[in-house]
Amino acid sequence: MHTLPQFLDLIDRYAAENPFPASPHELYEPCDYILALGGKRLRPALLLMGFELFSDDFAKALPAAWAVELFHNFTLMHDDIMDAAPLRRGKPTVHTKWNTTTGILSGDVMLIRAYLQLAKTGDPGVVLELVNTFNRVATEVCEGQQMDVNFETRSDVSISEYIRMIELKTAVLLGGALEMGALCARASKSDAEHLYQFGRLAGIAFQIQDDLLDTYGDPAKFGKQVGGDILQNKKTLLVLKTLEIAPEADCLELQRLMQTDAGDPQEKIAAVRAIFDRNQIPALIATDQQRFQYQAFEHLAAVTAPAGRKEILQKTVAELLERER
Amino acid sequence: MHTLPQFLDLIDRYAAENPFPASPHELYEPCDYILALGGKRLRPALLLMGFELFSDDFAKALPAAWAVELFHNFTLMHDDIMDAAPLRRGKPTVHTKWNTTTGILSGDVMLIRAYLQLAKTGDPGVVLELVNTFNRVATEVCEGQQMDVNFETRSDVSISEYIRMIELKTAVLLGGALEMGALCARASKSDAEHLYQFGRLAGIAFQIQDDLLDTYGDPAKFGKQVGGDILQNKKTLLVLKTLEIAPEADCLELQRLMQTDAGDPQEKIAAVRAIFDRNQIPALIATDQQRFQYQAFEHLAAVTAPAGRKEILQKTVAELLERER
Repeated sequence: MHTLPQFLDLIDRYAAENPFPASPHELYEPCDYILALGGKRLRPALLLMGFELFSDDFAKALPAAWAVELFHNFTLMHDDIMDAAPLRRGKPTVHTKWNTTTGILSGDVMLIRAYLQLAKTGDPGVVLELVNTFNRVATEVCEGQQMDVNFETRSDVSISEYIRMIELKTAVLLGGALEMGALCARASKSDAEHLYQFGRLAGIAFQIQDDLLDTYGDPAKFGKQVGGDILQNKKTLLVLKTLEIAPEADCLELQRLMQTDAGDPQEKIAAVRAIFDRNQIPALIATDQQRFQYQAFEHLAAVTAPAGRKEILQKTVAELLERER
Repeated sequence: MHTLPQFLDLIDRYAAENPFPASPHELYEPCDYILALGGKRLRPALLLMGFELFSDDFAKALPAAWAVELFHNFTLMHDDIMDAAPLRRGKPTVHTKWNTTTGILSGDVMLIRAYLQLAKTGDPGVVLELVNTFNRVATEVCEGQQMDVNFETRSDVSISEYIRMIELKTAVLLGGALEMGALCARASKSDAEHLYQFGRLAGIAFQIQDDLLDTYGDPAKFGKQVGGDILQNKKTLLVLKTLEIAPEADCLELQRLMQTDAGDPQEKIAAVRAIFDRNQIPALIATDQQRFQYQAFEHLAAVTAPAGRKEILQKTVAELLERER
């Protein structure tokens, strides 16, 4: 079995052997730029791990793995424009370093090149299945992004809507990557479906944990500023849970704090955290998160592959879900 | 054989039977909006005409036909943002009626839905060929758009670069639509290639004519303002040809006029036209255009289909290239 660094090496080598065209460089340079910003290559690695449950001939899975990474970076490039984000991983975003036209057009061509990679898989029956899964997931990612955009101006977002948004925007692509790994290996429909559900549910658990860590993470380990969501008045799961279960006074106090941007940032973070704490919000959210995580691993257990072949997938996803705790 | 209105009716009915999802409506409403602005549906009609050379079972070609129309509208939605265009067909563009985020995201999902339509063709072998052609052409359309963007800030664009730009940005999609019609009918590689070349060369001829008509069209028949390119100081083929062959004094005068925006618009149009006229630019451009047109129809002649089946395609493309003359 391969280790995570070995998978990442396979992906890097495939990417190097399948570069973007040289010209027009104004179109393709930003694609290279965003791919070089240092993402974890989690999605293609998951695809290869899903594939390795059933087969060792990685040449059959690498084009689809790279397709998923290209798609992910396409979404980042366009989302950064929509979010007017100046930085990604501490470097200027594409539309900041170049301009909005470049961000749109280079993103577009990167999406098309994702399909070009899928088609390179070669076997027509497998390509059709890959394209079907990819189309379904890619559509859902756009729908999730639209829900996220809608939520910014809505004050009545329910917890189930929020979970649905993170499911579509993030989790289905993790599930889709695993499912596509199974499809590349011509695994059974049932195994492909269990892998999809594993990734989808683990992805939801991961995003829930992300909300939790943004406020309760260890500042020494958490990559971003702890409390960032609070300062941005983001309607995270912590906020929605509070508004659902806390006494009216706490709800009103939270809403008031979320409409105030003046004052000391650390005081605001402390005040909001105090409301969360006295309503046991972190524990409630952690329970939700663990339910999704538990369900996820049940699906992995149901996949009909040797236990030894599941180890790396189990370990990688478990570590992602154990970070900072 | 079908008539153009019959083809358009087939396309409209297929579109009505394959609507966008209802939700999230913020994502899909702009897709319906741009498709309802009243395009000619030229590309899907060409695809069906290419298909009809070999087969009558239109159910096999309609998903690909609609895919090509979705792709075309995706490019319009994103190009309108890049061009900061307020109007399309006299109605507000998507990013003007909604906002840039909507224009980007609804465009993205429309591109993905084009692939979703391709996959609906069903036969895995045909889908793979369709996806390969579509990927190639879609990539080239992005590259053509990038060249067009680059040309705005360049003063040394050659005629061959300009022709290459219009070929990539517009003509290859017409060729690709015809090629995909042939692929849906499982026509021979050679016939598919001849159809592609027919569409590509006719597309170049069409775009060259567009430059000519913008300055020399009959104001009563030409949809847009005659002289619009001159007022926008666009580096059209007329300008590039002048800079290539005219005496230095005329070149300098043209460059001076293109750097002046003040003064009477009709006087500027007349002054630029006078330079074109005394250098026989319209006749030279028309000769170029006719060469591409002639080559195009040679490729149509080489397609191994009954002459009767070629009539509608011949007539439709000839009429497009005869407009306003």
